[in-house]
Amino acid sequence: MPIKEQISSIPLFEGLPGDQLEELSSIIVDLDYQSGQSIFSEGDEGAGFYVVVSGRVKIFKISADGKEQILHIFDHGEPFGEVAVFAGMHFPANAEAMERSRILYFPRDALVGLIQKDPFIALNMLAVLSRRLRGFAALIEDLSLKEVPGRLAAHLLFLSEQKKGSKDFELTITKGQLASLLGTIPETLSRILTKMSKQGLIESNGARIKILDRDALQDLAEGLAKI
Amino acid sequence: MPIKEQISSIPLFEGLPGDQLEELSSIIVDLDYQSGQSIFSEGDEGAGFYVVVSGRVKIFKISADGKEQILHIFDHGEPFGEVAVFAGMHFPANAEAMERSRILYFPRDALVGLIQKDPFIALNMLAVLSRRLRGFAALIEDLSLKEVPGRLAAHLLFLSEQKKGSKDFELTITKGQLASLLGTIPETLSRILTKMSKQGLIESNGARIKILDRDALQDLAEGLAKI
Repeated sequence: MPIKEQISSIPLFEGLPGDQLEELSSIIVDLDYQSGQSIFSEGDEGAGFYVVVSGRVKIFKISADGKEQILHIFDHGEPFGEVAVFAGMHFPANAEAMERSRILYFPRDALVGLIQKDPFIALNMLAVLSRRLRGFAALIEDLSLKEVPGRLAAHLLFLSEQKKGSKDFELTITKGQLASLLGTIPETLSRILTKMSKQGLIESNGARIKILDRDALQDLAEGLAKI
Repeated sequence: MPIKEQISSIPLFEGLPGDQLEELSSIIVDLDYQSGQSIFSEGDEGAGFYVVVSGRVKIFKISADGKEQILHIFDHGEPFGEVAVFAGMHFPANAEAMERSRILYFPRDALVGLIQKDPFIALNMLAVLSRRLRGFAALIEDLSLKEVPGRLAAHLLFLSEQKKGSKDFELTITKGQLASLLGTIPETLSRILTKMSKQGLIESNGARIKILDRDALQDLAEGLAKI
């Protein structure tokens, strides 16, 4: 299969127009790794990122006592090293082929040249990533809408208790921190707060929370009700 | 607060170096919307994207019978319209301020000019988005590792049954489709397949699946075991 077809099915480039896939193809280095062969080492400069076409790659660190700790295993269609390369950082871990693997290499310098020549390549890649982010966010929302409202209700009741039962208080941490504490993302947390407000459970204004219906929050926290 | 400080706390730009925040600030238009004021309409050209500083914005469609259907509500720090703008598309829905709102506007043309002058702005934004994607993916994995292996085991047993109990068969849909069917993402699905293989439940090679331990899959499907 020609490289252009190969990369059109990679999520990172999904939906890029044909001429941009063509331009990207022109900078790719097609690599073949043997089982056990090192791809990069921790601390190496992020001079380019990789996409697995076939085979499997492990990303790992070596602990102080020499033990290998596998962080990820990547296979068909998955990019690796891209965060470090986009950010201009060194690789934070090692990569090694776990079996014979075909891997596409995208050199950073060539990518920068490409973007300079055609900024729309970067915009389209930003579009792909933002669309995936939106999709992931929706999925996280689906998954966490089952449990997060209850945990959030419990947290609000706890904060109120700490303020000697006051119904009017401020969140003590940022919404980003609160979201990660609850196992969700800020976007979902915002939406749950909005939903709680609409249903008359609370009033929410920035970090300020006012409890309007303590019983309903209690039911939510105990899993006796849903929103 | 100066605009540069404002945007440094927006997830989309988190961790961008100071000079790039400065460059971005120079193209921003600072807008003030009244409650109920329209920001853009479905079908408008995506000439720029928006970030909410304060207030709230609803994204909605109007159905054939004139009913408003709210798709999203965005507040502090959240971007909207960016997918359409990056992709060079028209807006797929309407946006309206739900209360008095301060909103930053990033014109697409100016952004393209900025990227042409300094491609590293685009690379850094790609880094931010890929880092967020990795974080979201880890969260989805956390959330779905509770349930997805069981559902996957049930699906594999079902496929085997369809093949009259054969232990060796091919997935009938792509891994992307299978992942979304199971409520997860391809990366997590890959990892679960790898884990099942390591534990000797199956052998997985591309779309080809071989069941090695039917009883263990059965236990997994029924929630009697975990991987």
